[in-house]
Amino acid sequence: MCVLVVGSVALDSVETPFGVRDEILGGSATYFSMSASYLAPVKVVAVVGEDFPEAHVRLLEGRGIDLSGLARRPGRTFRWKGRYSTSLNDAQTLDTQLNVFEHFEPELPERCRNSPYVFLGNIDPVLQSRVLDQIERPKLVAADTMNFWINGKLDALKKTLERVDLLFVNDAEARQLAGEQNIVRAARAITSMGPRIVVIKRGEYGAILFDGKKAFTAPGYPIADVFDPTGAGDTFAGGFMGYLAHADDLGEKSLRRALVMGSVMASFTIEGFSLDRLTAVSEPEIFERFGHFKDLTAFDDLGPGALRAAS
Amino acid sequence: MCVLVVGSVALDSVETPFGVRDEILGGSATYFSMSASYLAPVKVVAVVGEDFPEAHVRLLEGRGIDLSGLARRPGRTFRWKGRYSTSLNDAQTLDTQLNVFEHFEPELPERCRNSPYVFLGNIDPVLQSRVLDQIERPKLVAADTMNFWINGKLDALKKTLERVDLLFVNDAEARQLAGEQNIVRAARAITSMGPRIVVIKRGEYGAILFDGKKAFTAPGYPIADVFDPTGAGDTFAGGFMGYLAHADDLGEKSLRRALVMGSVMASFTIEGFSLDRLTAVSEPEIFERFGHFKDLTAFDDLGPGALRAAS
Repeated sequence: MCVLVVGSVALDSVETPFGVRDEILGGSATYFSMSASYLAPVKVVAVVGEDFPEAHVRLLEGRGIDLSGLARRPGRTFRWKGRYSTSLNDAQTLDTQLNVFEHFEPELPERCRNSPYVFLGNIDPVLQSRVLDQIERPKLVAADTMNFWINGKLDALKKTLERVDLLFVNDAEARQLAGEQNIVRAARAITSMGPRIVVIKRGEYGAILFDGKKAFTAPGYPIADVFDPTGAGDTFAGGFMGYLAHADDLGEKSLRRALVMGSVMASFTIEGFSLDRLTAVSEPEIFERFGHFKDLTAFDDLGPGALRAAS
Repeated sequence: MCVLVVGSVALDSVETPFGVRDEILGGSATYFSMSASYLAPVKVVAVVGEDFPEAHVRLLEGRGIDLSGLARRPGRTFRWKGRYSTSLNDAQTLDTQLNVFEHFEPELPERCRNSPYVFLGNIDPVLQSRVLDQIERPKLVAADTMNFWINGKLDALKKTLERVDLLFVNDAEARQLAGEQNIVRAARAITSMGPRIVVIKRGEYGAILFDGKKAFTAPGYPIADVFDPTGAGDTFAGGFMGYLAHADDLGEKSLRRALVMGSVMASFTIEGFSLDRLTAVSEPEIFERFGHFKDLTAFDDLGPGALRAAS
């Protein structure tokens, strides 16, 4: 089954303790689609300016990503500039130039309207809703959001969430959206807003998925050289949704493997700048790292007599 | 096999969003020994004052904990007072009264000197070394420490670490001790100081164990009502060391189950004030929660054909 992603395609300028890169390929739809492309066919709806390098288009098309929904508009491509401190946790945004993204009106080509799996990248919730107006009977609608929309467009976001099956948010966003510090209670509160499934991304600590009363965790992959965390969250969502679309199944077993696959793909992205590592990863490497996640988490049941009776 | 713990026994006054408690039972040796007592025989070396309630002694003895190394000295028992904000992450220390703990000189009774499993609670590293001087051929020496000693007694701490097999620290302490932000590199740096195994406690995110090039994680247990996080780290160490002493084995399988058992026991402690929940837990509850950790982490291998070839 195929996955549709609506989001940003950007040129990023990034500074990390490992180096500086100017105007490299970035954006939520870019990371998502590249990651998902290893698992399922992907269609992208996004906008770029006249200056968007043709080489980037060829890179995405080379992975079989359908770019018929990528509009090219007069003007410059969306640009983001950020810096990471030595902790590599939070990016400090130095500059944002919306450019053609400022007037982005997602218009779905006919061939994108019946995608069974849909990911609404982190864009204005009003636009997220307009995308859903154009979709026919999807099997799963997932969305991402951020503090900017929670602060500034909460009503519109809540209207979108009523139509969303699965929400990806990070720890802080979950707490802010729910108005609840405890993460279990925050997930419950978000569920009452619409999404049946809540996936909370926790950076280097991995992710936790809540589906009704069930919870499932995936750890972060221990990496000694984190080059650039940009795009990790969208890569995670791409691996997750790509796996679900591949399995075409929303049962518990598939959700568990999807969560791990999201972590696997994100672990590659942060090993390089931009999509450098993600585009170079091989199928055996993905299988191997999936196995490493098993190694990271597996343990045997307790035998009988494991406890000592009080004397 | 039995476990020896050297640490503090305290009277805590705690304020959390769930309530206020005055002069309740606390201390690293207390939480550790109660937790470990479900798994293995435990001996405590610590000091209390004349005012230490006899009921607390009976509570610990009731779990079969050997208190022959618990000295009672003239003066008042060690007191700590702290407050947790709504995030329940870090305690703000409001008051510390060392009292009899100020002149604590751990003296091991004869019957404690041949304990095969030793846990040096978070005390002055000079005292930790003096404890080791009195121990005969232990199988595993584990230690805890904190920012106070890393800042103030780094040389003494490094001397102790040369004699330690396993170090328990939290994320921030690991980074501070190693002078390294990346947690994989921090663990490697700590290993070069002596400990073969490094266990990094990550609060609500669980724990990660490094043993040479191997890493293993346990998640935090998702709890909707965290009453009081005090003692979670020592309870974790108690469950971990108690399990190892029970298994009397330091192989990978045992280390993995020990890490999960630490998380299991810690998850009970934070469900109540002081040792309220930890003392009331039943064997079936421990087995059941260990099973829940399996549920939280288990996933199936990827089948062949899980990846899609690029078109």
